[in-house]
Amino acid sequence: PRLRIGSTVPNFDANTTFGKINFYDYLGDSWGVFFSHPADFTPVCTTELGAFSKLKPEFDKRNVKLVGLSVEGVPSHNEWIKDIEEISKLNKFGFPVIADENKEVAFLYNMVDEEGFKNLGKGPVSTIRSVFVIDPSKKLRISFTYPPSVGRNSAEVLRVVDALQKTDAKGVVTPIDWQEGQDVIIPPSVSDAEAEKKFGKFETVKPYLRFTKA
Amino acid sequence: PRLRIGSTVPNFDANTTFGKINFYDYLGDSWGVFFSHPADFTPVCTTELGAFSKLKPEFDKRNVKLVGLSVEGVPSHNEWIKDIEEISKLNKFGFPVIADENKEVAFLYNMVDEEGFKNLGKGPVSTIRSVFVIDPSKKLRISFTYPPSVGRNSAEVLRVVDALQKTDAKGVVTPIDWQEGQDVIIPPSVSDAEAEKKFGKFETVKPYLRFTKA
Repeated sequence: PRLRIGSTVPNFDANTTFGKINFYDYLGDSWGVFFSHPADFTPVCTTELGAFSKLKPEFDKRNVKLVGLSVEGVPSHNEWIKDIEEISKLNKFGFPVIADENKEVAFLYNMVDEEGFKNLGKGPVSTIRSVFVIDPSKKLRISFTYPPSVGRNSAEVLRVVDALQKTDAKGVVTPIDWQEGQDVIIPPSVSDAEAEKKFGKFETVKPYLRFTKA
Repeated sequence: PRLRIGSTVPNFDANTTFGKINFYDYLGDSWGVFFSHPADFTPVCTTELGAFSKLKPEFDKRNVKLVGLSVEGVPSHNEWIKDIEEISKLNKFGFPVIADENKEVAFLYNMVDEEGFKNLGKGPVSTIRSVFVIDPSKKLRISFTYPPSVGRNSAEVLRVVDALQKTDAKGVVTPIDWQEGQDVIIPPSVSDAEAEKKFGKFETVKPYLRFTKA
């Protein structure tokens, strides 16, 4: 399948460091941040999984479940997680990492680069740094794709979760570089009269650009 | 085509607010940040194009050309750009916006969501907030896909350009949340002896996790 914004993401069963999971059942009614990394015992990935595990309380607050993935087996993941806990000074690594040894989930979610795609079935294939933000109805809402050489931005993942949850809850949209607490935009589909009823005060910069408190 | 990290991006000719361009010729030997937005005279897009145009000096410094796209014609783009210049207090809007009225480029770069894809040929189709970071060899290096309701993060676009240029120039990789000036990671393919020759001092956290000054 080709995943687009608004696509229902595919379900799967997989072995993980938390035991066997069914993806949909694991997410339940939560949001999901599902991301892949190239390999266990590699440096950028180590910093990434440590950072995301440290931020788990922030994701918990937002009702978001984290799920990682790479193509090694569970024993390798578990050995490596000991390193991550030591390096990032974590009491306990906080979320499951899928052991996608047959690369079934990686291909279901297209977590490969051009080279990996060409090597399909004839060479080593590692996953890249994909991020999928999935809402409680299992729809893909945002996706990022980074190469193995560049680590992701944990603050941007939290920022877009805040933005998506705000837009869903309040019927607003968020401007460039928006951060929680900043003013939001009233969508053009809402008339001035409706906007006044719904949001109280708002500032009109142009008829189509109206800011209000979130 | 299905664009993956490492894919050569497709070339095209298009009408833009800077006249007719050939995409490859326009980029020349520069990096490219190519992004789409849903529609002219809509609020989030207005804040986004204003912010990117304000940052043009930063992109220029990094040898990056910006190219925007949406599905209206050049006259509509030009009228709207007057608003952007006024709102964002710009002397002159700084980069071309493609008028992709036939949605040819949008489909070449898959800048549509699930609903737009299903409406293909039978309803209105608008583009979503795609971002493609393209290197001078015309390879796709990073891509982001946001929905119409959530504005992008201009700092993250600049950050990944810095990271990609640093990794290419120095043969290093960048950790999670890396910012220009912070320490980088020596890739495991470089031995300790080579690393000492190449980078001088470095810090070994684990044999596979070594930090050095960039």
